[in-house]
Amino acid sequence: MEHIIALITDFGLRNHFAGTMKGVILSIDPGISIVDITHQVQPQNILEAAYILADSLPYWPAETIFVAVVDPGVGTERRSLVVKTGTGHQILCPDNGVLTIVEQEYGLINIYEISRHNRLPGTEAYFTFHGRDIYAYNAGRLATGKILPSDLGPQVRDPIIKLPIEKPEIHGESITGNIIKVEDPFGNLCTNIPAGLLSELSIEYGDQLDYTMIETAEKHQTGKLPFVKTFGEVAVKQALAYMDSSGRLGFAVNQGNFSNFFNMKAGLLLQVKLTKSIS
Amino acid sequence: MEHIIALITDFGLRNHFAGTMKGVILSIDPGISIVDITHQVQPQNILEAAYILADSLPYWPAETIFVAVVDPGVGTERRSLVVKTGTGHQILCPDNGVLTIVEQEYGLINIYEISRHNRLPGTEAYFTFHGRDIYAYNAGRLATGKILPSDLGPQVRDPIIKLPIEKPEIHGESITGNIIKVEDPFGNLCTNIPAGLLSELSIEYGDQLDYTMIETAEKHQTGKLPFVKTFGEVAVKQALAYMDSSGRLGFAVNQGNFSNFFNMKAGLLLQVKLTKSIS
Amino acid sequence: MEHIIALITDFGLRNHFAGTMKGVILSIDPGISIVDITHQVQPQNILEAAYILADSLPYWPAETIFVAVVDPGVGTERRSLVVKTGTGHQILCPDNGVLTIVEQEYGLINIYEISRHNRLPGTEAYFTFHGRDIYAYNAGRLATGKILPSDLGPQVRDPIIKLPIEKPEIHGESITGNIIKVEDPFGNLCTNIPAGLLSELSIEYGDQLDYTMIETAEKHQTGKLPFVKTFGEVAVKQALAYMDSSGRLGFAVNQGNFSNFFNMKAGLLLQVKLTKSIS
Repeated sequence: MEHIIALITDFGLRNHFAGTMKGVILSIDPGISIVDITHQVQPQNILEAAYILADSLPYWPAETIFVAVVDPGVGTERRSLVVKTGTGHQILCPDNGVLTIVEQEYGLINIYEISRHNRLPGTEAYFTFHGRDIYAYNAGRLATGKILPSDLGPQVRDPIIKLPIEKPEIHGESITGNIIKVEDPFGNLCTNIPAGLLSELSIEYGDQLDYTMIETAEKHQTGKLPFVKTFGEVAVKQALAYMDSSGRLGFAVNQGNFSNFFNMKAGLLLQVKLTKSIS
Repeated sequence: MEHIIALITDFGLRNHFAGTMKGVILSIDPGISIVDITHQVQPQNILEAAYILADSLPYWPAETIFVAVVDPGVGTERRSLVVKTGTGHQILCPDNGVLTIVEQEYGLINIYEISRHNRLPGTEAYFTFHGRDIYAYNAGRLATGKILPSDLGPQVRDPIIKLPIEKPEIHGESITGNIIKVEDPFGNLCTNIPAGLLSELSIEYGDQLDYTMIETAEKHQTGKLPFVKTFGEVAVKQALAYMDSSGRLGFAVNQGNFSNFFNMKAGLLLQVKLTKSIS
Repeated sequence: MEHIIALITDFGLRNHFAGTMKGVILSIDPGISIVDITHQVQPQNILEAAYILADSLPYWPAETIFVAVVDPGVGTERRSLVVKTGTGHQILCPDNGVLTIVEQEYGLINIYEISRHNRLPGTEAYFTFHGRDIYAYNAGRLATGKILPSDLGPQVRDPIIKLPIEKPEIHGESITGNIIKVEDPFGNLCTNIPAGLLSELSIEYGDQLDYTMIETAEKHQTGKLPFVKTFGEVAVKQALAYMDSSGRLGFAVNQGNFSNFFNMKAGLLLQVKLTKSIS
């Protein structure tokens, strides 16, 4: 059995942080495969990391161990977790909401807290790099197969932290949801509106959609977009709505950048309301 | 035999796209080696990808399988190809011109179209992530050695798409060619003028070169540069011409950024004309 | 025994440079593990590379071979080295000062010069990509275990190049040192002031520190910061001083960017003076 550790962090790629995590893992067992999902989550954006984790997860072998460290609370009292998901994967992460979408979509089977003494020996005086000292170290130990999650600390029975994401809903003839991510480098906007809700309103490829993006009570932006299968169905530089590769509604510009053209940013405060166009 | 898959995309490193491609490959066989060449091709810049692919290719073991996905036409009727090159490598890519330079420099031996049913099971409703659903999936299957390119679809006998790149040529005492790439992060400009053409005009290290860069009929920029072996032969912040690591003429600034200093961008429309300086 | 090659360069991730180095290594032996530490050192910033190398090194298995190529002098007469460190690691790099911090902190046991004929066959006409032609090639050969550093060239007995970094010092009630790095993407400033010097002045967590940053004789910036264990101990967007994950004093903003807020850049010319606040 090959062991795989997949990494999601906001450490960037300029400094040695991601590399040093790999050194720690390979010092435990040089045969472990380490694969980057991303180290370029927007700094401290736990919501972005939560979606990246959930959207990538089902495409990995079940024996993959994920490490998801976007951790503005590093070194404070927040807990460190190791969980097993409904898909059979393991995830090590701070208890800060990064598991919210995985739990919604796949469920969590077991949750253990990583006890404080389970850290890379010699790092007791460091408080700001748990990616190295806690998460890489314990992921490496789990990847050897010699210890189990239950060996790392007590089972967690009280609630873990969840991000305050409202579920998208149908209200009459409209769907409301949130803009959850900007897809760099293309500038597509991702919503949390799943394909199923569009089907419930009988929205089909070829329809026109009216949208309203609501930034604040005073700041709205409205428009109309064709709902198409793929970018190339509209002219170059024309905007469109489509079902993205995670099965959720997205907004894009064919060979352009929607977030630039429309000056839109992701964030839980930005709501989107969709209606099938009558005219 | 170790199997290697090398990746070239414009998916960037912030989102999970490149990582998810790796998950798909490792789900097929966790023993496959996956190596990134780049995921930061300028979005939709097929020309840049074509040169990156050709310039890296000869340095890889012959059993390497390349995946080159810069794919503004994803989900449209454009074909998906798997080719064998004159160097013995395999490449999976959309039929969009990305093979143009490889074909010029190394030749293509066999070309097969990947049939539409050869896609990651369960992804039939997705139209925008063939990097995951077509290319990573089929590259992984080929890397196991259990199937052959000819198992993926019919042989292609009609012409594949080529980018409209004119060959550099000698006109009297001058050479004309194109600026094909900016070498990020250094800002060197790469031309498609090979060493051989400079030799034909008896241009040698130490000579001065007059250049004209032609953006439009009205917009020219001229100058004179020393042709040297390496950057350190001129003063810091001084511009120079040199033979780059792919054997083509380049323009650089020693410990500086040519494209910034001279406000030059790459593109097929930018011609360069070179003449050995008389004075 | 698994062989590991760890890479540090300023080649960026957009072009094929880092990937081509990997192709060269895997062409020698496809079983070698290659791991990126970073390819995004600020272009030509040897000081930044020197700290990244030293700060990552102790976390890697002793059999790791490091390749550190930030090389503005590529192709000139500067030597190429292979060294063994006091930690048992090997490093291949240009003789340009990149070993300065490793030597200070861990010592160098043996130093050999890589002879000019030890280069990738067929690359004799190239002068600008020693990362591929010298360093990747010889690192790959060493990783096979079939040759030794002493097989690559003569032992070096004269001094190697060192960067002009003054040691941090105590002057009365103050400590002076330098700002050595900006930690991208968080914008933390790293100093070269080790924990030991703060202890000598009895500075403890919870103390307030007066700092003066000295850019030029006329350009100073002063302030007061709490010295805390970790970011979360101060309010969001508040500045702080802390001991970083390499055991040196750093300046940060909780969930913010110190280098942006305070308009500070790293560089040997920027001195910092610290005093425990009396009030």
